[in-house]
Amino acid sequence: MKLLITGGAGFVGSRLARSLLKNGSINGQKIDKLVIADQYAPPDFLLKDPRVETRTAPLLSQCATLHEDRFDGVFHLASAVSGECEDDFDLGMRSNLDTTRTLLDALRKAGNAPRFVFSSSIAVFGPDPAHAFPQVVTDETLPLPQTSYGTHKLMCEHLIADYTRKGYVDGRSARLMTVTVRPGRPNGAASSFFSGIIREPLAGQVAICPVLDTVSHPVSSPTLTVQGLIAVYEATREQFLGRSGINLPALNVTVKEMLDALERVAGPQVRSLVKFEFNERIANIVANWPKGAASKRAHRLGLHAAKNFDSIIEEYIEDQKG
Amino acid sequence: MKLLITGGAGFVGSRLARSLLKNGSINGQKIDKLVIADQYAPPDFLLKDPRVETRTAPLLSQCATLHEDRFDGVFHLASAVSGECEDDFDLGMRSNLDTTRTLLDALRKAGNAPRFVFSSSIAVFGPDPAHAFPQVVTDETLPLPQTSYGTHKLMCEHLIADYTRKGYVDGRSARLMTVTVRPGRPNGAASSFFSGIIREPLAGQVAICPVLDTVSHPVSSPTLTVQGLIAVYEATREQFLGRSGINLPALNVTVKEMLDALERVAGPQVRSLVKFEFNERIANIVANWPKGAASKRAHRLGLHAAKNFDSIIEEYIEDQKG
Repeated sequence: MKLLITGGAGFVGSRLARSLLKNGSINGQKIDKLVIADQYAPPDFLLKDPRVETRTAPLLSQCATLHEDRFDGVFHLASAVSGECEDDFDLGMRSNLDTTRTLLDALRKAGNAPRFVFSSSIAVFGPDPAHAFPQVVTDETLPLPQTSYGTHKLMCEHLIADYTRKGYVDGRSARLMTVTVRPGRPNGAASSFFSGIIREPLAGQVAICPVLDTVSHPVSSPTLTVQGLIAVYEATREQFLGRSGINLPALNVTVKEMLDALERVAGPQVRSLVKFEFNERIANIVANWPKGAASKRAHRLGLHAAKNFDSIIEEYIEDQKG
Repeated sequence: MKLLITGGAGFVGSRLARSLLKNGSINGQKIDKLVIADQYAPPDFLLKDPRVETRTAPLLSQCATLHEDRFDGVFHLASAVSGECEDDFDLGMRSNLDTTRTLLDALRKAGNAPRFVFSSSIAVFGPDPAHAFPQVVTDETLPLPQTSYGTHKLMCEHLIADYTRKGYVDGRSARLMTVTVRPGRPNGAASSFFSGIIREPLAGQVAICPVLDTVSHPVSSPTLTVQGLIAVYEATREQFLGRSGINLPALNVTVKEMLDALERVAGPQVRSLVKFEFNERIANIVANWPKGAASKRAHRLGLHAAKNFDSIIEEYIEDQKG
């Protein structure tokens, strides 16, 4: 079978590709070809695999001929991120809404109704004066995005549901939690510190935490996120239930709990490298985010959150060795 | 001040225009110019008013120069209807999603953040295996559209909320209930009988009711719908609350209650012209529609549903005399 991963060179996408290639199959079908479409080149370990074909260009420009591939399955992860969409409204609309729609139309033109997993986001949720905002958002919570990024994700969820109803694709939207611990450098995103306060101290560097340690947030590890995307792909329509988006499992954790875990895993000296410097701008952004998330539908698919934040840190340390 | 009504030649749009011209002002501002943009020409009574300017062409083709008008306010009612969108997927996307977005971009380009009322629809709601579908949908109910039309309306609600958050327009989405009694002839829409079973008997003609008389549905009259749109326009942002769409008030009524009202207003002989011929296709479509609707937010704006269906029939009879 022939699989497409858009954004397949990214943090989650490249890990998803690695898992799929290691498994060798998905949903009982042998993976013969894995196309990675991304504006950046994927990591070397993917380039070396003979099953991988790389297409390095903006996804929108790749869609005109994409129907010819007749992919059996698609993971659509390519997306402009939150900060980019706030800085450049038109870029966000083009990268997220136009690209998703053009991709869906290419798959519709192919005519084989491929399975289609869309990486939506916890960013579809937010507070609104007209509606109570629960401490823990569930699959039933009314999504009210507070960013352009969250707006695009939610619009695409509904677009995919309608393409699915029409039989053009077999689509499923999975809302990713904040994925941590991200390797690399701080990236300017307001959520960057959720990785930074673990990653930097483990590397012997000081990290700044811009919010109070009572702040709570739904997080997941890269491995559990990849497992979630694959499980959503492999679910029957009856198992997935309906066409609306689902939350992937979250560990709802406070900054203090994250740092307690860091101390247990790496010692008090490592923890002491985290300094608190309150940043009102970031704290205000974070105040608009869900404090926790839950998903009965994900549990029905056999998915579960990390049992504690210690295991998420340990996964990161293992990953860095590899 | 200068006002634009898209779809202003239509059933609701032309009544809205008539009301506004009669009032002479909106939100305390004198209406100097009222532009009616529609693919059809408006009724004569609008053409005769010197304040009215008619632009007869598809709205999408009018948007390129629309920023030059710098409208103070916009009512965006133009839309492909449910049946058209099911028959022609691309037409629906173009007429509803692309046109709304292009209109929003034209208003954004104008730079004066006009007040913008969008006619959304009760069609944003529907049943989904993953979610309980309440008997009465409220402002809090999770919208899960079951048609392309409902999908477009919901996507546009979120788009307008984001354009509003960014300060490009001052947008408000109002979900219209099924508007009855519509004059004229049956129109292929599955909901057509909600008007037909009143209109045809009043004209001495037999009408076919394709569903059981226990079917319940949220309806409103043309006059109350127009009042709702104007109240949503005139609300301050604090009164409107948030940026999410609101339900306009509904009278939740069964077919039997509609016919009982018909008998009270016009007599048993008129009622006897309604024949029941069960149509499974239409009954199945109607089964996916909300059985009732409620809106605390609309009540906060001073809006109320018709007190009974008798008054809706009487409004129709008066309207036909005029």
